[in-house]
Amino acid sequence: MQYKVIFHVDELAKWNLVLSNLSNLVNALKVGDFQVDVLANSEAVRYYESQDSHQDFFKMEKLAQTGVRFVACNNSLRAQKLNPDDLFNFVEIVPVGVLELIEKQQLGFAYIRP
Amino acid sequence: MQYKVIFHVDELAKWNLVLSNLSNLVNALKVGDFQVDVLANSEAVRYYESQDSHQDFFKMEKLAQTGVRFVACNNSLRAQKLNPDDLFNFVEIVPVGVLELIEKQQLGFAYIRP
Amino acid sequence: MQYKVIFHVDELAKWNLVLSNLSNLVNALKVGDFQVDVLANSEAVRYYESQDSHQDFFKMEKLAQTGVRFVACNNSLRAQKLNPDDLFNFVEIVPVGVLELIEKQQLGFAYIRP
Repeated sequence: MQYKVIFHVDELAKWNLVLSNLSNLVNALKVGDFQVDVLANSEAVRYYESQDSHQDFFKMEKLAQTGVRFVACNNSLRAQKLNPDDLFNFVEIVPVGVLELIEKQQLGFAYIRP
Repeated sequence: MQYKVIFHVDELAKWNLVLSNLSNLVNALKVGDFQVDVLANSEAVRYYESQDSHQDFFKMEKLAQTGVRFVACNNSLRAQKLNPDDLFNFVEIVPVGVLELIEKQQLGFAYIRP
Repeated sequence: MQYKVIFHVDELAKWNLVLSNLSNLVNALKVGDFQVDVLANSEAVRYYESQDSHQDFFKMEKLAQTGVRFVACNNSLRAQKLNPDDLFNFVEIVPVGVLELIEKQQLGFAYIRP
């Protein structure tokens, strides 16, 4: 069985909890046994900003290397006045975050909102 | 593909974010391509109260006209001492909000909790 | 139709709302018509601590007797320095809470995050 899940984060204050959840999950599984997406929208996309690289950057980069996809909502980037160039280079962008949340669930992904 | 989703809101403070999510979603899709429900329970049902019509009323009414269903949990209405007559006229009522959240997901609706 | 749902609680402050949701749900259904799990992780596992038995203990015990499964994430128990012996005796333990949330959804359980 392959584990498929999309995490949803729309508050900056929730990122620590999300990253802790992701570490627990990835440590429990073998690479290749999971598809894990993290969809950030609203203010939460600011955590992807590379300018003032925060302490969690290395944690996120390591998770990205194991296959975790970090995704940003483009509507939210615009609302937060962020450009794609401002983000960590492992971040992917989708036009509408909530649409991504729906599509992934309709493809059989579980949804977790820490 | 038709997009089916139920949004869950149980905090008054989350309505702004929910309505912003809904606008982004509806703007990205064609009417008829989606079934979008919003289930409010707990204190969040108070945002449906029509007496002191708030600034988001027009936003909600416009969304309702595109097909978004705004739904209230009747248990929560009772707990908040609200009558059906107190609500915006586009609001539908279900007996038990959490039951609606389960039934919709078992019918293939995605779940989003902003 | 059998109702299957997993509730997710990761904040202590949300327990009141979760227990109220559970009571509404169980009162609306017949025993045997539902599978209801509650997965607590992060700080929320502290509500399972039996030492200072709180006012909601009887509410939880009664729900457990109707078939509601109260589950704790073992990673979170360790992080909170709690032992299995410290918990109410109706609490079950799983190794990784988020994995349980994924598995249950992939088995057709709805997800509710109050």
